[in-house]
Amino acid sequence: MDRVKPRTLSGFMELLPRQQVLFDAMLRRLSDSFSLYGFTPLDTPMMEAAEILLAKGGGETEKQIYLLRKGDNDLALRYELTTSLAKYVALHYNDLTFPFRRFEIGKVYRGERSQRGRFREFYQADIDIIGDGSLDILNEAEIPGVIYRCLTSLGLDRFYVRINNRKILSGFFEIIGDGNIASDVMRAVDKLDKIGAEKLSGTLTCDLGLSQKQADEIIGFITFQGDPFDVIARYKGQNEVFDTGAAELFTLKNHLAGFGVPETHFKIDLSLARGLDYYTGTIYETYLTDHPEVGSVGGGGRYDNLAECFTERKMPGVGISIGLTRLFFILQEQGLLNGTFLSSPADVLIIPMTADLSHAVKLATAMRETGLRVQIYCEDKKFKNKVAYADKLGIPFVVFLGEDEINRGLISVKDMSSGSQTTASCGILTAGINDKITALREGAPIKDI
Amino acid sequence: MDRVKPRTLSGFMELLPRQQVLFDAMLRRLSDSFSLYGFTPLDTPMMEAAEILLAKGGGETEKQIYLLRKGDNDLALRYELTTSLAKYVALHYNDLTFPFRRFEIGKVYRGERSQRGRFREFYQADIDIIGDGSLDILNEAEIPGVIYRCLTSLGLDRFYVRINNRKILSGFFEIIGDGNIASDVMRAVDKLDKIGAEKLSGTLTCDLGLSQKQADEIIGFITFQGDPFDVIARYKGQNEVFDTGAAELFTLKNHLAGFGVPETHFKIDLSLARGLDYYTGTIYETYLTDHPEVGSVGGGGRYDNLAECFTERKMPGVGISIGLTRLFFILQEQGLLNGTFLSSPADVLIIPMTADLSHAVKLATAMRETGLRVQIYCEDKKFKNKVAYADKLGIPFVVFLGEDEINRGLISVKDMSSGSQTTASCGILTAGINDKITALREGAPIKDI
Repeated sequence: MDRVKPRTLSGFMELLPRQQVLFDAMLRRLSDSFSLYGFTPLDTPMMEAAEILLAKGGGETEKQIYLLRKGDNDLALRYELTTSLAKYVALHYNDLTFPFRRFEIGKVYRGERSQRGRFREFYQADIDIIGDGSLDILNEAEIPGVIYRCLTSLGLDRFYVRINNRKILSGFFEIIGDGNIASDVMRAVDKLDKIGAEKLSGTLTCDLGLSQKQADEIIGFITFQGDPFDVIARYKGQNEVFDTGAAELFTLKNHLAGFGVPETHFKIDLSLARGLDYYTGTIYETYLTDHPEVGSVGGGGRYDNLAECFTERKMPGVGISIGLTRLFFILQEQGLLNGTFLSSPADVLIIPMTADLSHAVKLATAMRETGLRVQIYCEDKKFKNKVAYADKLGIPFVVFLGEDEINRGLISVKDMSSGSQTTASCGILTAGINDKITALREGAPIKDI
Repeated sequence: MDRVKPRTLSGFMELLPRQQVLFDAMLRRLSDSFSLYGFTPLDTPMMEAAEILLAKGGGETEKQIYLLRKGDNDLALRYELTTSLAKYVALHYNDLTFPFRRFEIGKVYRGERSQRGRFREFYQADIDIIGDGSLDILNEAEIPGVIYRCLTSLGLDRFYVRINNRKILSGFFEIIGDGNIASDVMRAVDKLDKIGAEKLSGTLTCDLGLSQKQADEIIGFITFQGDPFDVIARYKGQNEVFDTGAAELFTLKNHLAGFGVPETHFKIDLSLARGLDYYTGTIYETYLTDHPEVGSVGGGGRYDNLAECFTERKMPGVGISIGLTRLFFILQEQGLLNGTFLSSPADVLIIPMTADLSHAVKLATAMRETGLRVQIYCEDKKFKNKVAYADKLGIPFVVFLGEDEINRGLISVKDMSSGSQTTASCGILTAGINDKITALREGAPIKDI
């Protein structure tokens, strides 16, 4: 027959079994961490009517979105999870209770140019807290706590969350006499990390028409060395938005310890701006301490109006998004995946040594009842190939069941890591295996120290 | 601004939070059950080059598949999970160890006509065991055990697995003198349940040209009342394929008890045929005992050549697929979702009764450390609205933290199910809540008895 050459599209991550186990462990730990904060899981469709996904407009989105047509319908694959959430809360408003806390971990699609480390299909893990009309600042203060718990649950330690409040920046730009082009200034300031203070000054003066004095004042403010609340204090009482932002940031900072975020893992950073006009209050970005070059691995912020494309109701919220596929790719590149994480498909491989397999079957069933993941090797191969099967898959224990063992009511277990072999009753050995497997399962999928 | 009316495409299941929790619990239990049998998780791309997904050909598939185009590429959304698996094992052959046991739970897409209970986006949960050149019959015998454990882990009890072996049917058709049109006869026989014996007889004689005697013999064989191995015995020794199938079915049946499948939960059924030529040995279909009208909720079988479109290697396998979205829809329709399943987004709602929220924050963090899912209610609402929030979301415990409690180092807990309220130390009450939550979590998402 005519054969097709098997291939996977570029920009689509397809993992080998062992890496997939690590990735899935990350998903499960994230989901468990989100749940601790009262976020409920959602799983919205991957495909929507094109008019829904394009409701917000925006040129870049339209260029990268996957469109398809079926019959008379214009359909599209989701580009991120926020528009689906906005549609969801607008559509199901009457069935939801606010504040509404949801998380969604799902695949999104972007028809980007193929590039190493850029993906066309990738997982986003989003959390959002949506208020009905209003939302207390404490919700914003809680987010760094969620990020901290999530990333530590994955096994990461060397990261920190940069935090700022956009009201401070907008208010500040008004104070120094340039409120009108605040969002242009914001986008320029957002590039400080990449271009440095000198180039930023050039952009502010030449491109945006600020005076050198204004540019100096902006740069002095956002790069202030020392406690940021000291430089904030200098401008207080001149602008309401500024003062509100300052108070919010202060409240937030004071709650971080209570939410379990150590001093080492956050940085109040007045130079953090984020390009999107969408954000109106607290903003967050998360960085790997040792890999600043990869940029933010997750971020978000406070917004005033989630679903304005779909409803006249005002729904302010706060949320963050973690790009999981990219994070996994980076961690793998940097050698930070935990090599000793239990990633075998089974805990125990039973190798029957008799033609009658009924004892092996019963033993497998009994061991599974205790929670062990068990496979019976029943193919007709040489003995050494059977043991090699366990070895290749990293299965930690092999059980041999021969006539001698069956007659004596015992089993023989080989610990593949030490090579030691023991013969004893099934109950005793199963308990011993379970203890060791429990210990092995405690490892986290990532190890960065 | 111009608003877009929010809507979800027809044929796409979008669940409200409580149902989503039940659905996710099903996914997690299935995944845990598959893992007990040594199946490793895979997560293949939702999108492939169109030539890959259409490699097998087949008119129905092409009509229903979602095609899209990006630049010069013809792309398609997967229609089922088997083609992705076939591509995966052909592409990654050198990195895999055989027999290769994998499960994949993922969304697939079919552009079907909109119809109640039919979905365009739905979850399939697939397991397959792929051999390299050969695969022992014990693998086929294990599958009903996997199905039994999976469905009982969801809380289902009233179901059974129909089992047959296609070799018996093919051999039988040859014995009675009609091997040539075996696959047409197979497709006709597959409809016995729907059309009854009389109409089947008509189809066999009028449409397929069999003699009345042949039709009677077929119907006598497949509807034999009593032990199927009695009627099988009558035809033994005349056809090699028949005898092989009979021996395989016998081996399989003898292992079912060992694999933990009770007599009540399987039925050797010679009338089970399955329409697809793809299957070459054991075949399975699973039915809800009380709802025969919904048809099979999961099935599969043995095949000889998984990846023949992609490689010349012979890879026999056995697998099953459960249509999860449809199963969930049916269970919901039949009122079989467990109404007492813990589906709230949190276990505990903390209601601070002081302006200073720092104690509430610390309490939430401490309770989360014990594994409890905790939310702080911090919106500016009337007291009764705060308690109503817990009530609406089904949060089982509310903690009140007032000045009195804070000064005395205590907390007050209201058990929302009984209405009783207790004031005591945080440690004691947290332990008590944890015990009750552990008990609540033991429920299964489905309850059919």
